Amino acid sequence: MTGRAKATGRVWAHVGQTFVEREYDVVILGAGRMGAACALFLRRLAPGLRLLLAERGGLPNEEGATILAPGVWTGLDVPPGREREAVWDRSQLERELNDVQFQPRSLLDFYAAEGEGRVPTADLLAHFPDLADVVDPHALPFARVDEDAATYRPGSVALACGQGAVRAGADLLLNTHAALIPGGVCLERLTVTNTHEVVTHETHEVRAGVVIVALGAEGPHAAEHDLGAHTGHGRAYRQSPRLNVPTTDATPTLRAGGLTLRPQNGGFTLVPPIHHRDPHGYVPVGGRLTGVPVGVRRETLEDLIGLMDALPALATGALEVGRSLADVPGAWVALPGGRADTPPTHEEVAPGVHLLLGGPLADTLGMAVAYDLAARVAGVEGRPWER
Amino acid sequence: MTGRAKATGRVWAHVGQTFVEREYDVVILGAGRMGAACALFLRRLAPGLRLLLAERGGLPNEEGATILAPGVWTGLDVPPGREREAVWDRSQLERELNDVQFQPRSLLDFYAAEGEGRVPTADLLAHFPDLADVVDPHALPFARVDEDAATYRPGSVALACGQGAVRAGADLLLNTHAALIPGGVCLERLTVTNTHEVVTHETHEVRAGVVIVALGAEGPHAAEHDLGAHTGHGRAYRQSPRLNVPTTDATPTLRAGGLTLRPQNGGFTLVPPIHHRDPHGYVPVGGRLTGVPVGVRRETLEDLIGLMDALPALATGALEVGRSLADVPGAWVALPGGRADTPPTHEEVAPGVHLLLGGPLADTLGMAVAYDLAARVAGVEGRPWER
Repeated sequence: MTGRAKATGRVWAHVGQTFVEREYDVVILGAGRMGAACALFLRRLAPGLRLLLAERGGLPNEEGATILAPGVWTGLDVPPGREREAVWDRSQLERELNDVQFQPRSLLDFYAAEGEGRVPTADLLAHFPDLADVVDPHALPFARVDEDAATYRPGSVALACGQGAVRAGADLLLNTHAALIPGGVCLERLTVTNTHEVVTHETHEVRAGVVIVALGAEGPHAAEHDLGAHTGHGRAYRQSPRLNVPTTDATPTLRAGGLTLRPQNGGFTLVPPIHHRDPHGYVPVGGRLTGVPVGVRRETLEDLIGLMDALPALATGALEVGRSLADVPGAWVALPGGRADTPPTHEEVAPGVHLLLGGPLADTLGMAVAYDLAARVAGVEGRPWER
Repeated sequence: MTGRAKATGRVWAHVGQTFVEREYDVVILGAGRMGAACALFLRRLAPGLRLLLAERGGLPNEEGATILAPGVWTGLDVPPGREREAVWDRSQLERELNDVQFQPRSLLDFYAAEGEGRVPTADLLAHFPDLADVVDPHALPFARVDEDAATYRPGSVALACGQGAVRAGADLLLNTHAALIPGGVCLERLTVTNTHEVVTHETHEVRAGVVIVALGAEGPHAAEHDLGAHTGHGRAYRQSPRLNVPTTDATPTLRAGGLTLRPQNGGFTLVPPIHHRDPHGYVPVGGRLTGVPVGVRRETLEDLIGLMDALPALATGALEVGRSLADVPGAWVALPGGRADTPPTHEEVAPGVHLLLGGPLADTLGMAVAYDLAARVAGVEGRPWER
C-alpha cells in the first residue's frame, strides 16, 4: 500500500513510447467493460494505490465480448436478491458515464402461454404498428413489459471507464499481452510488422501485490495456464446476426424464446440464447441452411428456425446469416460457473490474484460486480446499493 | 408388400461376394443394436417382407456407440410412464437373446443428502468390503439401491439380433456405406486397398418402400444431408476411461454425481454423465491435468475431478486418463431431441423413411423402441408390454 495520489495517469499506446515501470500496487489485465470499470472504481476508492490497466488490443479490445455485448439493461434478467445492485448498476450507466448512448427503451418479452404480469400481445402491438411484420400475435399471444429497461453501448462503457480511470490517475498500457507470474505479471508489448504479423517488441516483468484478471472468456484459461488454478468457469461463442427490419429510437427491445432483438443502427441486432457452454477445443464453424453454407453456427440457426413462425421477419431476406463465419460478428462470452444464467462474479484464484468475470448478465450487473471487487481490493466496507 | 418368407437370409461380408439385388421391401441402415433388433423383430412380425440390413462396418460397427455403451439396465433410468416397456426390454435381454452376458447386478446410486428410498451408505458398504477404497461414505452418506438392475453387453446384443435376423430370413450386407435416395438407397460396397485406404468398390441403387435409418449419432445428419429434412436431434462424444480397481461378478454397479462405474473385465469402466450436446463441428480433443496433456476430454476430466473427494479411487493411479485422445475409448452418442435425458425414439422424417435413435437410455428402452418401429412397419397393432 505505497504510492501517492496522482492527477492524471500515463498512457502507452504503442511501442514507440518508452515503458520502464517495474512495480505497481495493482495491475488489472483487460480493459473490457469489467476491467475498465474496476479500474475507475479502484481509483476513486483507493487513490493512493498505484494502478496499471493493461490491454492486449485497444480500448476496448475489438475481438472481445464487450464490443458485441447487447447492452440491454432489464429487470427481467436480475437474479433474486440482486435487485438493488442492478438498480445501482443502471444508475451508473445512466448518470455517471458520458457518451454510452444510454437510452430508456421498453423491453417486450413474448410468450405462447398466459402467465403472471402478462398482457395480450395484440393490445401491446397496437402501440407499435411497425412491429406487425416482426411478431405474430397468434403464435405469441402474451407479453410481459419491462418499462424500466434501457439500452446502451458496452463498448462505450469500457471507453468511458478506461478514460475516466486514466483521468483519475490510472496508467494505461495498450497493445500488450500479459501473463501471470509469481508476484506480478509479465508484459509483452506487441507491434505489427510490415507484413501484418503481430510480434512481441519487448518484455517487462512488473511486480504487483494484487493482479486482477479481467480477460473475459480467456480469464479462466489464463488463471489455469499461468497459475495451475482449476476453475469451473466456461465459455460460449455467441454470434449476433443482423435483422434488417427498420427500427427507430422508439422501437422497444423484443424477446421471444430466449432470443433478444435489440434495436440498433436502424435495424435489429439479434442476440441468440446461450443454452450451455461450448466444449474445450471447440472451433466455431458455420452451419447449413437447406444445404447452403451460412455464417451462423448450427445451434443459433436452429434457434432462429424454431422461431420463424412466431417472428415471421426471421423467415425473410431481412435476416443476414452470411456465407461464412467471418460474415457474422461473434465473440467468446465467459460463462461464470460454466452456466449461462449466472451473474458476473469475482474470485481470488491465488493469493492476490482475482479473476473478474462478466458473462451473459454483465449488461445488468457488471458495473456493480466490478465495483464490489474494487471495494474489496481497496479495503472499503459497505456497498453503495446497500444504503 | 410383395415377397415370400425365407428360411435363412444371405450374408455379403466382402466385395468378393457378388451382390445383384435391386429391390427390397425394407432396408435398414446400420447394424448397431437398434438397427439389428429392429431387423430381428421385423422378421418375426412380418416374415413376408423382403428385408436387407446394411452396415458400414462389421456386426456391430467397431466405431459406433453400441460397442462402448455401458450395458446397464436399471429402473432408475426409466422415464415415468415407460416402466412396462422397460420391464419387457429387460426380459428380452435376459431370456430371448443368447450370449449377451446378461447378469443381474445391483446398482447403488450415492448421494450427499438424505432422500426418499435412500439408506445409509455405511450400512450398505458393510456388505461390500471391496468398495471401502472406492466410495467415501462421509462424502456420500446416502444411497439408493436398485436390486433389479443388470448388466449386459450391447455389442453382443447387436450380434445376437443381427444373426437372429439372418436366421429368420433377413439379408445382411456388411462393409457398405449407404445414402438415402428417392425411393430407396444407394449402397457403396467398401474395400480396403493394400495401402490401408478404404475405397468404394462398387455402387448399387436398391429400391425399397421403407428405409429405416439406424445409424446412431450419424442418423440425423444422414437424414438432413440426403433428404434435406431438418431434425432437432443432437449428439455428444462420450469417452469411457478405465478405473483399475478390482471387481468381480458380485461387485455392484455404482453411481455418483451422474457418473456410472460399471464393473467390467475385472475393473470398472467409467461412464461419465452427458450434460448436453456437443456443438456442430466439434472435434474431440484431450484435456490437461495440472498442465499435463491427457486423453480424456476437458469436460469429463472436470466431472472426474469434482468427484475425487467422494470417490477416492479416482484420485489414484488406478484412473487411466491416457496421454492422447486415442488412448481412451470414445464414441458419438445420439441425443434424441438434442437432450441427454430423452428415451430412444423413432420418427418418419420423409414418406417411408424412419429415423431410429437409441442414445443414452438405449440400455433400458432400446429393444422396446426398436420393436415399436418394427411393429409399426409391419402394420401390427398392440405391443407386448401392453398385455
